[in-house]
Amino acid sequence: MVMKALQYVRVGAPPELREVPVPEPGPGQVRLKVTAAGACHSDSFVMSLPEEQYTASYPLPMTLGHEGAGVVDKLGDGATGVAVGDSVAVYGPWGCGRCLQCAQGKENYCPRAAELGITPPGLGHDGSMAEYMIVDDPRFLVPLGDLDPADNVALTDAGLTPYHAIKGSLGKLGPGSSAVVIGAGGLGHVAIQLLRSLTTATVIALDVSDDKLALARDVGAHHAFPSDPSARERIAEVIGVPAVTAVFDFVAAAPTLELGAALRGVESDQVLVGVGGGQVDVGMLLAPYDATVRAPYWGSRPELMEVLALARSGHVRVETERFSLDEAPEAYHRLHEGTLRGRAVVTP
Amino acid sequence: MVMKALQYVRVGAPPELREVPVPEPGPGQVRLKVTAAGACHSDSFVMSLPEEQYTASYPLPMTLGHEGAGVVDKLGDGATGVAVGDSVAVYGPWGCGRCLQCAQGKENYCPRAAELGITPPGLGHDGSMAEYMIVDDPRFLVPLGDLDPADNVALTDAGLTPYHAIKGSLGKLGPGSSAVVIGAGGLGHVAIQLLRSLTTATVIALDVSDDKLALARDVGAHHAFPSDPSARERIAEVIGVPAVTAVFDFVAAAPTLELGAALRGVESDQVLVGVGGGQVDVGMLLAPYDATVRAPYWGSRPELMEVLALARSGHVRVETERFSLDEAPEAYHRLHEGTLRGRAVVTP
Amino acid sequence: MVMKALQYVRVGAPPELREVPVPEPGPGQVRLKVTAAGACHSDSFVMSLPEEQYTASYPLPMTLGHEGAGVVDKLGDGATGVAVGDSVAVYGPWGCGRCLQCAQGKENYCPRAAELGITPPGLGHDGSMAEYMIVDDPRFLVPLGDLDPADNVALTDAGLTPYHAIKGSLGKLGPGSSAVVIGAGGLGHVAIQLLRSLTTATVIALDVSDDKLALARDVGAHHAFPSDPSARERIAEVIGVPAVTAVFDFVAAAPTLELGAALRGVESDQVLVGVGGGQVDVGMLLAPYDATVRAPYWGSRPELMEVLALARSGHVRVETERFSLDEAPEAYHRLHEGTLRGRAVVTP
Amino acid sequence: MVMKALQYVRVGAPPELREVPVPEPGPGQVRLKVTAAGACHSDSFVMSLPEEQYTASYPLPMTLGHEGAGVVDKLGDGATGVAVGDSVAVYGPWGCGRCLQCAQGKENYCPRAAELGITPPGLGHDGSMAEYMIVDDPRFLVPLGDLDPADNVALTDAGLTPYHAIKGSLGKLGPGSSAVVIGAGGLGHVAIQLLRSLTTATVIALDVSDDKLALARDVGAHHAFPSDPSARERIAEVIGVPAVTAVFDFVAAAPTLELGAALRGVESDQVLVGVGGGQVDVGMLLAPYDATVRAPYWGSRPELMEVLALARSGHVRVETERFSLDEAPEAYHRLHEGTLRGRAVVTP
Repeated sequence: MVMKALQYVRVGAPPELREVPVPEPGPGQVRLKVTAAGACHSDSFVMSLPEEQYTASYPLPMTLGHEGAGVVDKLGDGATGVAVGDSVAVYGPWGCGRCLQCAQGKENYCPRAAELGITPPGLGHDGSMAEYMIVDDPRFLVPLGDLDPADNVALTDAGLTPYHAIKGSLGKLGPGSSAVVIGAGGLGHVAIQLLRSLTTATVIALDVSDDKLALARDVGAHHAFPSDPSARERIAEVIGVPAVTAVFDFVAAAPTLELGAALRGVESDQVLVGVGGGQVDVGMLLAPYDATVRAPYWGSRPELMEVLALARSGHVRVETERFSLDEAPEAYHRLHEGTLRGRAVVTP
Repeated sequence: MVMKALQYVRVGAPPELREVPVPEPGPGQVRLKVTAAGACHSDSFVMSLPEEQYTASYPLPMTLGHEGAGVVDKLGDGATGVAVGDSVAVYGPWGCGRCLQCAQGKENYCPRAAELGITPPGLGHDGSMAEYMIVDDPRFLVPLGDLDPADNVALTDAGLTPYHAIKGSLGKLGPGSSAVVIGAGGLGHVAIQLLRSLTTATVIALDVSDDKLALARDVGAHHAFPSDPSARERIAEVIGVPAVTAVFDFVAAAPTLELGAALRGVESDQVLVGVGGGQVDVGMLLAPYDATVRAPYWGSRPELMEVLALARSGHVRVETERFSLDEAPEAYHRLHEGTLRGRAVVTP
Repeated sequence: MVMKALQYVRVGAPPELREVPVPEPGPGQVRLKVTAAGACHSDSFVMSLPEEQYTASYPLPMTLGHEGAGVVDKLGDGATGVAVGDSVAVYGPWGCGRCLQCAQGKENYCPRAAELGITPPGLGHDGSMAEYMIVDDPRFLVPLGDLDPADNVALTDAGLTPYHAIKGSLGKLGPGSSAVVIGAGGLGHVAIQLLRSLTTATVIALDVSDDKLALARDVGAHHAFPSDPSARERIAEVIGVPAVTAVFDFVAAAPTLELGAALRGVESDQVLVGVGGGQVDVGMLLAPYDATVRAPYWGSRPELMEVLALARSGHVRVETERFSLDEAPEAYHRLHEGTLRGRAVVTP
Repeated sequence: MVMKALQYVRVGAPPELREVPVPEPGPGQVRLKVTAAGACHSDSFVMSLPEEQYTASYPLPMTLGHEGAGVVDKLGDGATGVAVGDSVAVYGPWGCGRCLQCAQGKENYCPRAAELGITPPGLGHDGSMAEYMIVDDPRFLVPLGDLDPADNVALTDAGLTPYHAIKGSLGKLGPGSSAVVIGAGGLGHVAIQLLRSLTTATVIALDVSDDKLALARDVGAHHAFPSDPSARERIAEVIGVPAVTAVFDFVAAAPTLELGAALRGVESDQVLVGVGGGQVDVGMLLAPYDATVRAPYWGSRPELMEVLALARSGHVRVETERFSLDEAPEAYHRLHEGTLRGRAVVTP
């Protein structure tokens, strides 16, 4: 049996649609018939890395797709807790399952994953951009229930990542606070909704694209301004103070980080989520007192369940544009161009 | 192949040492060669329940022992993450593994365990008081490493339960606070050590036995007083105020609960751990403002790892008296009599 | 100079409108020209207490009113930090100002207030139901800014009390959670708004009055059901599980506490706010694991600031019916009858 | 009446002992007869600033000393809550007293202090290095009770600052964690004791001075190593993993920050306390996931109370060398040379 899969085949080359064998689940594994797969900037980021960074953990060819949903299709020996026919989402940042972090469901911070050669699907071994995919353990499968797979698959990264980033700052985002979201794309437009649902903060979106600023307003931003040096003054005007409580930077390139740093106040959080490659300087007399800077990564398994609960209760909805597997290369092209509204989702 | 096992055979009758077949691990399961098993009041409590409370979840005969340690002896199909020969402790409060609580490792609070017929080993299906035991999933096995199994097996309940109870109150037990431990037995004498290690609170132990008060002082209680109505005044004297920050009641019978209620101050915690059957009344004008009452149960999987870390760093040490499997009935007898110093541990 | 004041004059008698001297501020004190005063069930509760409970801390006659707002009118010597003409709200639960609790702004839990004879205005010494009132320290005055005093004076208790009660449970009210509000009156209808703003929980209101159930829906309750034994089943139906995450009981009489206790799940919170005089029994086998019961009191000074910030950002709005000082006895009558929509506010 | 005071008189010049009038307390103020004053690196730091940084908030001459203790000597009009003869410590980071931060006792983070020209005693207006000092409000006075002023005055900064820094990381410093203290001087040697009392972390001290490494071991550090690039390997060896949970850097110069950055693990905290002028770069791919960097400042009023409670319960003790007021210039000299064991305290 063969299937179609969108694969990254050669370093530096664009991904190709290929015919490959349908994989068999080994002991403890689960095979999904994929119902939806999301395309993400970090796929492009990985494909932009030079060859010497391709170590044993990124063997090629590799099927892309670290956002995945599917229907349980076949169980390996000893795989329990799910049944054939279940509609599930795939939790992507796999860990060892046995350390202190994994025991709490924080497999995204498993300290042993690297040494054990454990990588997320689509970011090291075969992912969801195919008709079938293998998931290494049933614990990585979270029930979707009635949630539509294509509408919600992007929550596994574009929802989970901002949720985790925001959750780490929730204690600061009380009444009277303010939060800035830089970049109103796939992750940012979900971040805006999460901030509106989880906090009472004034939410301000910054972006360089008018379309994205419009999307930001549509999904609930109180204010949306061009992401340029004028933003600082405009923000001060609408919140009445010169500094904000938290900045979530989904671009994290040098200019946005500089802007974010300028917006920080005492005890603020600057949270770097994008892979734009910039950096922030922190020093005793360089930053407001107790202003913290951190760069979280993806999210935990219980957090993914919480994000899906928010979708169920109507608190968050991902804007998606859909593509067939044949059109998947086009999805990455549009993503690269920055012309997508929300997230590109491939439905095989 | 047969083995010896201490079994609860008939409701109301004392447990018996019997010969039973050595069990085989099914798919996903693990067989341990038991290295140590702890005897606990809750075993006696379960054996004291009338027949009508024995439902399908407590079929007899059942091998006792919900505190267990062993060496991995045989893996069922698809059981991964442990290797034959590993020295491990058994996490007892098993859950479904897939709900929001279980995803955080809080399987002790799995809302689905009851409906799925999942019970702890030794409290529903066969436990650790035998030469071999079956564990349903490798995730229930926590590495012991160099820790001696007999010295540390009791941490799986007598350590984990007070740890979980105390952790829920840590936020209140800051500098200048005070904590009362009622009952300095198997759990209580560990609670005293945990409070000394995890907090800067003044720790006061109450017990009706002079031997246990001496043990309380030996393991670090700042003060140890008879558990009677005079305790309130003596405590007020040593801490300088009439109320304490938290009461951990490892007896939880009517008189200790009444005493504990009388010790509560504003924003205090009264934490019921024992199965003494008492109750506390809470009402707007009956208790100090925001005094909370709760009855936690056992602990989470990451918490067990933390307790073992505390044993490794020398912060906690269980007093044990050791018994062979043949002497196990005697261990329960001594436990019932209240003449043990610390915990009874059976080494098969 | 004389002024009108609504005073509680004789134990058991209804309050009277009287002419009394305009008070002078002593050193460190502030005199307000009252702009608004709220009428509260706890005033009625205090007036229902038998004479023997009237100790030195409740001397009569006493001007009623523990919800107050005003304009700074005159400063005593050494009173700093406010200026004549400032529009302010009065933080009511005064404390010593110097203990650990007061240093955090938690003067509601000051352990020394009783021994020092410190009581809230309107609940021990003269309150806000008059043309002028004395406030003992400028720190008890929180700036109202542009907020309308009559619209917002009730936030000082009817907003602050549920806010404090809810804040203590916020950690549990994550995605997928549920919260029940019993009693959709003065405090309850604010609680509903707070829960909708601060959490993503499903919010269910229970009341015996159809008008209040309608109000509950108007202010954002997802569901509103009669407060009777059928509620349990109806709630289970709409949330899909048999137990809720938190119950906030603004009645706290025997039947509502019993209902609340029946709704509790594992790790739930039952929070008693009303002064209905009921009580809940907590015991190891009487309640779900780690279900906590507590009865908080009023709120802290920073929490009052946060509540006012929520009013400013439009997250909370008190329904009010307005009365002149001459009509104030009628306000208490309507309150007693339960026919008010929201809160009664007196504008002198 | 005149008194002796150690004053900073001219930018760039060493401080001088001068005779100045004994100050009178204004309305709301309190005069202390100073019992002890601590000398701190930040005094030297301020004295090293170039003239253009001396704005209106640092008028000269200024009496040094931001760590102070005294006996209440005279009350201004309307100053309440303290009595003549009380032995008190001075909380130094004064704020406006009325904003959200100050209402929580976090006056160190008052956003209005700068605009209102409020500065700490000894860092803007006259401090404690004199026979008498003025404190602007009784709330800045924390009772010392039986605590010896000279032994404990340094807790107002050298205790409070590390306490606040550590408290922000307590949630991460659970069982199995590790904490590095860089710089075992006045603040660092207290930090070590605090970490040992408040956490179960393995505590490792780094310093360039053998004497300070010896002090570090004396006050409880599990390990003490030279602060140089070899430290990373030695730490990895003793804790068994390559990264630590938290680094508290009381030097915060370029080399220590670089070393600290190299020690960080996933979800670690790097906390900059010293004024060494260095900076850390944070970026998505430059630091371990969710490693945070922050530079807190001094501490809150309730935290000072907690630190004094720890002194009372014997959890922390400052090493001090004592000097008379005449010898105070020598104290600063020794501080600058780095030859003090612990803290220099001046007893006028």
